[in-house]
Amino acid sequence: MSLQGDVEKKVQKAREASRRLVSLNSGTKNRALLLMAERLKTEAGSIKEENRKDMEAAESKGLSKAMMDRLLLNDQRIQAMAAGLREVAALPDPVGEVMRMWKRPNNLQIGKVRVPIGVIGIIYESRPNVTADAASLCLKAGNAVVLRGGSEAIRSNAAIAKILAESAGDAGVPDGAIQFIDVPDREAVMHLLKMDRYIDLIIPRGGAGLIRTVCENSAIPVIKHDKGVCHTYVDRYADFDMAEKICINAKCQRPGVCNAMETLLVHEEIAGSFLPRLGKRLFKAGVEIRGCPKTRALIPGCKEAEEQDWYTEYNDLILSVRVVSSLEQAVEHITKYGSQHSEAIVTSDYAGARRFLTEVDAAAVYVNASTRFTDGYEFGLGAEIGISTNRLHARGPMGLEELTTYKFIIYGDGQIRE
Amino acid sequence: MSLQGDVEKKVQKAREASRRLVSLNSGTKNRALLLMAERLKTEAGSIKEENRKDMEAAESKGLSKAMMDRLLLNDQRIQAMAAGLREVAALPDPVGEVMRMWKRPNNLQIGKVRVPIGVIGIIYESRPNVTADAASLCLKAGNAVVLRGGSEAIRSNAAIAKILAESAGDAGVPDGAIQFIDVPDREAVMHLLKMDRYIDLIIPRGGAGLIRTVCENSAIPVIKHDKGVCHTYVDRYADFDMAEKICINAKCQRPGVCNAMETLLVHEEIAGSFLPRLGKRLFKAGVEIRGCPKTRALIPGCKEAEEQDWYTEYNDLILSVRVVSSLEQAVEHITKYGSQHSEAIVTSDYAGARRFLTEVDAAAVYVNASTRFTDGYEFGLGAEIGISTNRLHARGPMGLEELTTYKFIIYGDGQIRE
Repeated sequence: MSLQGDVEKKVQKAREASRRLVSLNSGTKNRALLLMAERLKTEAGSIKEENRKDMEAAESKGLSKAMMDRLLLNDQRIQAMAAGLREVAALPDPVGEVMRMWKRPNNLQIGKVRVPIGVIGIIYESRPNVTADAASLCLKAGNAVVLRGGSEAIRSNAAIAKILAESAGDAGVPDGAIQFIDVPDREAVMHLLKMDRYIDLIIPRGGAGLIRTVCENSAIPVIKHDKGVCHTYVDRYADFDMAEKICINAKCQRPGVCNAMETLLVHEEIAGSFLPRLGKRLFKAGVEIRGCPKTRALIPGCKEAEEQDWYTEYNDLILSVRVVSSLEQAVEHITKYGSQHSEAIVTSDYAGARRFLTEVDAAAVYVNASTRFTDGYEFGLGAEIGISTNRLHARGPMGLEELTTYKFIIYGDGQIRE
Repeated sequence: MSLQGDVEKKVQKAREASRRLVSLNSGTKNRALLLMAERLKTEAGSIKEENRKDMEAAESKGLSKAMMDRLLLNDQRIQAMAAGLREVAALPDPVGEVMRMWKRPNNLQIGKVRVPIGVIGIIYESRPNVTADAASLCLKAGNAVVLRGGSEAIRSNAAIAKILAESAGDAGVPDGAIQFIDVPDREAVMHLLKMDRYIDLIIPRGGAGLIRTVCENSAIPVIKHDKGVCHTYVDRYADFDMAEKICINAKCQRPGVCNAMETLLVHEEIAGSFLPRLGKRLFKAGVEIRGCPKTRALIPGCKEAEEQDWYTEYNDLILSVRVVSSLEQAVEHITKYGSQHSEAIVTSDYAGARRFLTEVDAAAVYVNASTRFTDGYEFGLGAEIGISTNRLHARGPMGLEELTTYKFIIYGDGQIRE
């Protein structure tokens, strides 16, 4: 069978399963998730065996140490995957929720009800835990899933997906609900992206290159989880201790993630007193600082920021710093260079806080808190499949609710339109 | 200036305006809508003048009578446009609504707030009233709009758009919020569809050809308002009088619209008694019937339905009819041939109604009512920009709420992530 035919067969199976998943009750879905967790643990040996082959192939290909570490599966990581599955089982089922129901003057009763999206394609890189995370969230929200992991983790992913699909089937989930594309060719992704007859949504998870490829080639709606060029603006009315604590946390607590701060903006009136002390703490924490001319005059050892720096998500212990003349200029900077992910102001001024919250256009806008909180768990929304940088359908943490859509149900007793 | 440069300049202006529209208060927006309504009436003369030129051009091109009628603007139609603007002014402003707000254990207060989408491109055909309808809904929801109407109505649309944009400006709406692309070339649409840097959403309104062109060429998310192949299933437990009334209404009350019935499914147990009497009424109403073999045996004068008929949105007094052996077969038929728009069951059976509501996948699913109710006003949701046949973001009637997105606002007092 051709590569395209092979991919299409799996995708069609997912489509068929999705029709039955719509009315699958929560009990069955939860039993499946718990069985999946159990089997991941009892069959950890076979997963590690396949992972070892991926690791060997990666080593011979000369993958970086960081990449190798992402790829590695040990007992602890397999147990963490299983724990994730149990957490999803414990979350409330979004499907069937009546978001609103009302009556019309003609006695029609109209309800807006959450239903699954249908078939979701997940295209991801390296970390094999995404296989379990994505499959569990899609299943809980009543969706069939087509998984396409990176070629470097293909054996690990295939082993995990096989266990998940089999356990789901044993627990009564319709056959075909979890599909894994085990073809390493990039061509398989291209075929997948054109199957808009069968797939309702594509979620890419990975680096900028992957996301660009998916967005440019997909005939299917895409919800992307793109970069976060997050800013913290320290206003002239900021409490310095609070501002320092927030800046250090936003930059250093975990610099490699999308909600970490990449650029600091400081009001010129307080820059002279605030920046030198913050600079010392940042250097102590190992942060490289790239500043505007005013910043460089205030922080000895600060490098020069180039235009490109303001657009950059470093994902590393590097920070660009700019002195601004007003809150307005801070908002303008964020509008121009930001990626609409997470933005914060530190201020004790009521009007400034209100203005920042209204005028800054981003998935999450903070007053007096670290941008690091943009996360499904931290928001109290439960497990997430990622942080959406789309504007439509889902924005910010994308959890179970965002993996559903809705339909209107209408109860009548013979009504016709006049 | 090049065509592309000309389009881009307008789109950039819309983008700039959208940044200021975000914080524009409802009072200003409503005053603008009322002024727009007033000016449409006082300047009706100039609109009719431009419309006359469009009509003359259309006549010399030999456009059909139906097309000419769609194009025509008279005092009554201009007054209807103005009335539409006043209705939008009277609707509640969706922007700023806090959809949910909660506190976290660390005292972070998190709110999910409705905000405008940004810049919306509307690509439409013939009827010039869309210019006013679309502009008013976009403005009320805080969006800048780029309008691109059909070339046959270009002078009428330009005249309306000019009045709208000027009145909006006079009422204090940021300059550039309402843009009209007055270039008749189809190339202008192609340029528009690639400007994803400036436009957040494209809504095509028109025939199948326009929608296909837009979907295939857009780099911007599209919410389409596509065809409705709507079914009514008369169950074996149906009340015949109710079923007849609903079928006649769904087919005949306004056959040219997307929520009219195109296919009737009848349970075989009652087909023998129900179909002959319904057939007579349908013929009396001038409906052409295309049936399966069983239907043809029961309705003398019924034509033969071909496979293609089951997929067809006639938008006319034509109905395809099929006898099915069970509710399950009815659902299967709808799944295979339907367009997920509006589907109805007529039954007195509790379990059957419940099953139909769950298993049928469509924007609106009815029990014992005419599919003709799928409409923003009929649902009690107010004016709509169309009926979305997308699954994501907006499904079914797309009104002011669906012309917004959301962001999270977070009030802290120094919280950092541990």
